[in-house]
Amino acid sequence: MEQIDLIIEAQTILPLTQTQTVLENHAIAIDQGKIKAIAPTASLHAQYQAKEVVKRPHHALLPGFVNAHTHVPMNILRGLADDYPLMVWLQEHIFPAEGRFMNESFAYNGTLLAIAEMLRSGTTCFNDMYYFSENITTATLEAGMRACIGATILDFPTPYAKTPDDYFSRAEHLFSHFKQAHLISFAVAPHAIYTVSDENLKRCRALAQAYQLPISMHVQETQTEVEASVANTGQRPFRRLVDLGLVDDRFMAVHMTQINDEDVTLLQASHAHIVHCPQSNMKLASGICPITRLQEAGINVAIGTDSTASNNDLNMLEEMRTATLLAKVSTQSATAIPAYTALRMGTYHGAKALGLEKIIGSLEVGKAADLISIDLDQIEMLPLYHPHSQIIYASNRENVIDTWVNGRALMRNRELTTLDEEKLKATARAWAKKLTAAHV
Amino acid sequence: MEQIDLIIEAQTILPLTQTQTVLENHAIAIDQGKIKAIAPTASLHAQYQAKEVVKRPHHALLPGFVNAHTHVPMNILRGLADDYPLMVWLQEHIFPAEGRFMNESFAYNGTLLAIAEMLRSGTTCFNDMYYFSENITTATLEAGMRACIGATILDFPTPYAKTPDDYFSRAEHLFSHFKQAHLISFAVAPHAIYTVSDENLKRCRALAQAYQLPISMHVQETQTEVEASVANTGQRPFRRLVDLGLVDDRFMAVHMTQINDEDVTLLQASHAHIVHCPQSNMKLASGICPITRLQEAGINVAIGTDSTASNNDLNMLEEMRTATLLAKVSTQSATAIPAYTALRMGTYHGAKALGLEKIIGSLEVGKAADLISIDLDQIEMLPLYHPHSQIIYASNRENVIDTWVNGRALMRNRELTTLDEEKLKATARAWAKKLTAAHV
Repeated sequence: MEQIDLIIEAQTILPLTQTQTVLENHAIAIDQGKIKAIAPTASLHAQYQAKEVVKRPHHALLPGFVNAHTHVPMNILRGLADDYPLMVWLQEHIFPAEGRFMNESFAYNGTLLAIAEMLRSGTTCFNDMYYFSENITTATLEAGMRACIGATILDFPTPYAKTPDDYFSRAEHLFSHFKQAHLISFAVAPHAIYTVSDENLKRCRALAQAYQLPISMHVQETQTEVEASVANTGQRPFRRLVDLGLVDDRFMAVHMTQINDEDVTLLQASHAHIVHCPQSNMKLASGICPITRLQEAGINVAIGTDSTASNNDLNMLEEMRTATLLAKVSTQSATAIPAYTALRMGTYHGAKALGLEKIIGSLEVGKAADLISIDLDQIEMLPLYHPHSQIIYASNRENVIDTWVNGRALMRNRELTTLDEEKLKATARAWAKKLTAAHV
Repeated sequence: MEQIDLIIEAQTILPLTQTQTVLENHAIAIDQGKIKAIAPTASLHAQYQAKEVVKRPHHALLPGFVNAHTHVPMNILRGLADDYPLMVWLQEHIFPAEGRFMNESFAYNGTLLAIAEMLRSGTTCFNDMYYFSENITTATLEAGMRACIGATILDFPTPYAKTPDDYFSRAEHLFSHFKQAHLISFAVAPHAIYTVSDENLKRCRALAQAYQLPISMHVQETQTEVEASVANTGQRPFRRLVDLGLVDDRFMAVHMTQINDEDVTLLQASHAHIVHCPQSNMKLASGICPITRLQEAGINVAIGTDSTASNNDLNMLEEMRTATLLAKVSTQSATAIPAYTALRMGTYHGAKALGLEKIIGSLEVGKAADLISIDLDQIEMLPLYHPHSQIIYASNRENVIDTWVNGRALMRNRELTTLDEEKLKATARAWAKKLTAAHV
């Protein structure tokens, strides 16, 4: 008998590999953070002796969700300013609030709040873009979560950095300081075409090449952005980025609600990735990314929640559901983005966008044990006919019962194991008091 | 000191009247099912002595949601057939399953499952359209919930009725048999223009007039429905219904994703109501009801979930959120249907569509005590800046903690008081087994 760390038994295992599989009466063997075996429960117990056996008799096990775009510290700003268009929201509410309040503890506290929310809704990995990335990383390490931390680059000063040189030197410090952190990867994250000059975009390219990192960037989020770029330079933003050499198979174009034929051709040729944030795009009235068309063209589409300031939650279950509902109504096809495809977008395709598809994104032997359990026996989840579509169309965040990252239970039976919920809530209340008193 | 039944104290009371009010440190006095007073907590206690005092120190109290269109027994069919267009879904999956399995216990069990789900997500009143309405009503009375029960009328036979005469006589039996039921009201519910002949529609009109009831009907749900009507009769469905005399201020047009200028004029002139079911319309790719335009034209717009076979939940919080997000993206205006408007659509405007706006839909002295508490102090609900938008954009069904109907707690601290959850779950599992075995 081989000694291992953990066996998890469940009613149903949904590996979310390329083939749509439903395993009944199976269990997962986990050792040293990795999936060792997925097999019928009896045969697994015959082969392995586990330090811990977790039984989830009316649950599904599936890969944790990959939130491919968010700004975790902004949890401090959840619901600060709703029902405004993107530019008013940014320039009259978010930027001023950030200018006054953003600092190291804002980033650290906001990240812990966001991670608590993500673990409670089944997300095991997130791709971030914000300031004070060192503090974001510290919080993420404390929580034990997996993340790709973006080093944000901007032309203009913020409380985080005064000059472009500052941003770049902080980025390099981030990459080198945390290079041993096993669960952390990095990205270069130029904010957008309207906030980063061509010169600094080229420096981003060089930085990404030097450190062999992906680039993550807001691209063609709104029609206004595209029109301004065409007026200023004669080119649409994505075309400009291609010409500047930023776009390859490690480039994540976030939002892309504005897509024309040339964009599709450029995406196909470059093998760049799309990160679709449907609820944020709806809430800010930015537009609809045509994900059905992109998927048909062979382009990888991941899903992100964006921040709680524009969503206003980090709930990937609802985000995947919204992605399929919006795809159906906008293409007038009820067969668009079926449940299984939506689930894959929120797991494997997210991992692929981050360059992590060999490590996470599906339940397979040798991959990291980043997985969740969902209770299939709640009033809202019964009767059960098809588990994949039940999860996409009927489940919600409270149905997620356990969340493991790299084999470690970060939520067990709805209890967070590495974070103190009451303390986090007190922190959130204190921030609300501070911002409310300042009338931001 | 006046003796009364109940005082509920809360952090925040959101009456959801026409003026956007947030009451802090207030409480609600309730007696004999009605709201007796809403006042500062101390002054309320000085005036009333209550048999029960409920303290909800970090919760909001607000009116319960009015789900203005659903088919509650279909909870048995949740997730049976997803990712299909309306007509394939109906004719190849739903109608055959109903033909084989629908009976009195299907209706009764499905209703109890649906009510459990609705109470757990803050709905206190629903407007139903299905078969075996007597059994639906019996289950609703057992649960203690408020409902408007539609008497469905169709041309063709179902397990419920063989002929139009059957449907009409069962409707009259329903209305007279339950006429004493305090929390139950009724509607005449012709299914749709493509399933009910002009002759039977006229009988529906006469029946509604005889019993002084509203009419609730699927209208212009899809483009196909409109085109077929125009091809067959030269008229769009809504125009035909107006000409047949069915449409007045007690008519609820459900769905209406297809709306032209003439429809708007007819809606304005008749003061008919729209019931918007955004998630169902998205999932079945039916289209988008232009609710911003309708509201601007002064037309009353309520919200419904439709059934769990096409949604796949009865979660009004998510439905209101989807209504505003879809309105914003489809009109390219982030200011469309702000949070408060969305909340009013899910409460007062629903009550108005049902003709119950003098009884329910807002927290006001003299109205029925149909209300809910929402926990504002969960990780997903913090920090808190604006309670109305927090509820619309960040809360979800699990944040609903208590549900009172007519002053009676039907859910207290997440525990249902009139329904046995474990028994209901066993019933749901049994139905799933039966349908799965039959390969429907």
